This record gives sequence, structure tokens and C-alpha cells, in this order.
Amino acid sequence: MTPEDREGYLRDLRLSLEAGYKILQAGGSSLDATEAAVRVMEDSPLFNAGKGAVFSRDGKNVLEASIMDGRTRKAGAATQLMTVKNPISLARKIMDSSPHVFVAGADAESFASSEGLEIVDPGYFWTERRWKQHKSSPNSITVSESTQHDEFHEKGDNLPKGTVGACALDRHGNLAAATSTGGKTNKWSGRIGDSPIIGAGTFAENRVVAVSATGDGEYFIRWNVAYDIASKIKYGGQSLGKASKETIDHLKTVGGEGGIIAIDSTGKIALEANTPGMFRGYVGRDGVVKVAIFMDEPCV
Amino acid sequence: MTPEDREGYLRDLRLSLEAGYKILQAGGSSLDATEAAVRVMEDSPLFNAGKGAVFSRDGKNVLEASIMDGRTRKAGAATQLMTVKNPISLARKIMDSSPHVFVAGADAESFASSEGLEIVDPGYFWTERRWKQHKSSPNSITVSESTQHDEFHEKGDNLPKGTVGACALDRHGNLAAATSTGGKTNKWSGRIGDSPIIGAGTFAENRVVAVSATGDGEYFIRWNVAYDIASKIKYGGQSLGKASKETIDHLKTVGGEGGIIAIDSTGKIALEANTPGMFRGYVGRDGVVKVAIFMDEPCV
Repeated sequence: MTPEDREGYLRDLRLSLEAGYKILQAGGSSLDATEAAVRVMEDSPLFNAGKGAVFSRDGKNVLEASIMDGRTRKAGAATQLMTVKNPISLARKIMDSSPHVFVAGADAESFASSEGLEIVDPGYFWTERRWKQHKSSPNSITVSESTQHDEFHEKGDNLPKGTVGACALDRHGNLAAATSTGGKTNKWSGRIGDSPIIGAGTFAENRVVAVSATGDGEYFIRWNVAYDIASKIKYGGQSLGKASKETIDHLKTVGGEGGIIAIDSTGKIALEANTPGMFRGYVGRDGVVKVAIFMDEPCV
Repeated sequence: MTPEDREGYLRDLRLSLEAGYKILQAGGSSLDATEAAVRVMEDSPLFNAGKGAVFSRDGKNVLEASIMDGRTRKAGAATQLMTVKNPISLARKIMDSSPHVFVAGADAESFASSEGLEIVDPGYFWTERRWKQHKSSPNSITVSESTQHDEFHEKGDNLPKGTVGACALDRHGNLAAATSTGGKTNKWSGRIGDSPIIGAGTFAENRVVAVSATGDGEYFIRWNVAYDIASKIKYGGQSLGKASKETIDHLKTVGGEGGIIAIDSTGKIALEANTPGMFRGYVGRDGVVKVAIFMDEPCV
């Protein structure tokens, strides 16, 4: 990572946190705050979501996202998107105004259009950096039956794959979580990862926790990461910190890299990863925005 | 339900159970047994999976399925299928031979073809009964923002919507679960339900439980039904019976109708529904096949 990259990531993380915090400060909902925070990162070319998403095996940007309201456990999710500028806002519209929770492809895109969301040419999502990753990835078609998902790791960077997410607690005690991604470099275009899966990449329930995940999606699905953390709190009486650490540490032992961000109804947060770094940050009651990249450095 | 319908359902349930049990008896795996049992129901025109699936809003049969191996927590899932005769076998192939867990649409179908699975014309799935349901459903486009998913119930039959599933425990102590469906009558074609969602419609973990669900998919996703039951056992120390009943009873209180079948590693089973009936059955160690439809009648 060049110093310029680092600066850019930290700047856009701050902008994202500020966008969410501004809504909470004005008495807005945690749902609105998480959607706004994720939109900033979708619009940034640096993160693997919206503009700047990675390319699939077929050279496409195929996007997915989900959002969950801890107050009602309503949820919205979308996948197989190629023309919706802000997938997280489509997930929100699906939650608010559709009869479904999870909608894919053309149906999701035409709903986005009918709801007045911004539609873009697929070329909008193209960035040179991601195109180079697509062209140079050695794992584009490697499949091994014996190791299933292991072969598909992107080696070398040792950071979660840039999926973006936000969790928030508002003054009414409502929790919300939102997640958006372009998936994995050279994934099959039809691949669905954990980000749009309620209970894997995203979960929120008032008085329990809001969680958003990033990492090797196949492992996050198989280990139900977001709801596993919630369950340890709900049924096992664990603290947020212990539950998050146990789940993410265990994931590492089975081969899954990544992390989560989470907040509980007391305002406690967890920023847990089993990788050397995870772009992350938070704003507490004091309104101070704090961010960090590597796990051995505190948020400042 | 006519007496002929009733006979047909019970006959095909028995055939399904026998197909699975035969594999277990011969020392085969729970994974193979659940796949075989589900294939029988996919091939039956009576159940809402494979042949006999319901129609979407656009008059299409759009299928989805998932399978999970309790030994390894490997999983496979597919959605947005219109030409794969046995979606459960594609889910299995995705688990065994792809780098992914969950694959949608054209990519999933071309993988099915390359793996030698049977591909059929979409017209194969057409049945007169389902076509009439599609044409006569009053809820085809009713959406209410305030009640989100409530408007979309199919009123009148009061039975789960015909999603099929199987759970098994083999002599090696391995658990597996498999689920397959056509979704809801007049769903959006792009709608993804709970059946292909690991932790919602399907879950298996050795020494914990195998679960397969049927019902109002949106609710099963939002309440993470399959993994919620597993979590109550794992982290809450509950029995399978208590965990299943609590989760399914609670679902009813929030508006979600449906049920689950489950088996734990001691061979205890749960066949729990919050509806007047659920087509269901089991074979115990004695090899006797038992089936039932309504919840107030025992399996015989």
C-alpha cells in the first residue's frame, strides 16, 4: 500500500463515518445512518463495493448488498446486480417496499429503476486497479475438490477483500447493520457471497447486536458468522467482545480469513479480524471519528 | 384435498423415505441419503420442488435448493434455476466440485450441464394444478409497505407451501440436511427464499443438529430459523424438541407460517410446524416408514 492509498482509505473511511454520524446526531435512525455510511464507501473507487468493485471471472462487476433493521428484524438484500449505482439503497428499498427479502438480477434491477434509484452503465464500476487484479489473479479457475473453497483465496494482500459495512445504534436504542460488496476477484459471475445473506454477512436485532462481516464469503456462510455471534450473546450469555473473538478466531482455524464490525445495544463495539489488517473505524458518543488499518494499531 | 391427493402425497413421501433409508442401510452417507430422498420429491409432480414447482409472477418455474454436510460444514446452494431437473443434485455438485457455496442462474445452469446433470426444457416443470394456482392467486401484485411480507401469504390452504427437505444421521454419526423448492406462487422471478440459504432453510453440524425448513421464506430468513434452532442447542443447552418448538412457535407470533424437520446426533427427531398440517415422515432404526399430514395426527 502506498502512502497515497493509505491516505485515501482513511479519508474515505472518515467521510463514511461522518455521513452516518451526522444522521444519528440529527435524531435520525440507525437504518438511515448505516445506509448513508455504506453509500459513501460504494461511491469511493477504493473499496470493493459499488464503484471500485472487483471483476468476476467473466470480467464483470457483479454487486450485492443487504441491510437489516434490528427493531423489526425486517431485512432487504439484493444480488447479481450490474447497473444499480448503490446496491445498499436497493437492499433498503426491497426491505421497505417489496414483498420479498432477497431479490436477484433483472427483477432487482427493474425494481430499482421503478423506485427511482440511480441506474448506471456497467462501465461505471470499472477501475484500472481492479481490472489489473482481474487479469493477474492466478486463481481464476483453480478448483480442487478436496479443499473446496481453499483454492479460491486471493493470496498476497492478507487483508479482508474490501467488502464494506456499517453498524449503528441510534438514540431510540435501535440497531441496524448494512453490507455491500463486489465479491471476490474472478468469482463466478453467478456466485453469491455472504454479504447479502442475513445471518452470514449481515445481522441486527435490538437488545442483542448489529454485525457486518468481510472476508472469505464461503466460510462466512458455512459458519453463519453474523448470527453465530448474535447467538452466543443471546443464548450463551457471552459478551460482544468474547463472542466476536471466538467466532472470528475459530473461522481462522478452519481456513476462513476476514473480520466483523459490530455494536451492541449498550454502545459497545467490536472490530475483530483474523487478518493482519481491516480498514475500520468508529464514532462514539463524543463524536470523535477514529480509524485504523492494521490490527496491531488502535483506531485514532 | 381429495382422497386421491392424500394417497399420492403419502405414497411419494414413503418412496422418498425409502430411497434415503436404503442408502443408509447399505452403509452410505447421510449426505447421499438426503440427496436421494429429495430427488424423489423433486421428481414427483405433487410437491413444490422440481417437477410440480409453483409459478412465479412471470409464469416461470424458478427453482432453488441447498445441501449441507454436518461433518465438514461444507455446503452447496443454487438459485434462479429454470432448466436443471434436480436442483438438489446441483447444490451437491456446487458443494463438491466448485470453488463456491452459492451460485445463481446461468452460471449455475452451465455448471450443472458441464457436470453432466440432467438439463430439461423449462416446460418440463409445468403442471396444470400449479398453473391454475398461478392464474387464480389474488396476491400476485399486492404489496403493502407497512406490513412488508404479510400480504404475500397464500391464504386458504393453511399448509406449508410444499418446499421439500430431508435430514439424516448415518452410522458414522454424520448429519446432513437438504432442501429444494419452487418458492412461492407468484413470487417475483428474482426472489430468493430461505431454501438455498444456509442457516435459514438448511443447516447441519455434527453433534448438534440437521434441519430443513418449509414455510414463509421471508420470515425464515429474517429469523435465521435453521441456525437459530442449532444455536439454542449449542449455546443454550436446549433439547432438540424444545429448541424447535420455541423457534417455530415464536415465528407464528411474528406472522411466519411453516415448519421444520430435524434430527440430532442421538437420532432424536423433531417434526414441528405452526400450521394445521405438514407433509412429513421418518424412518427410525427399526426401518419402519411412518408418515402423516395433519399436525394432530401421529406419523403411521
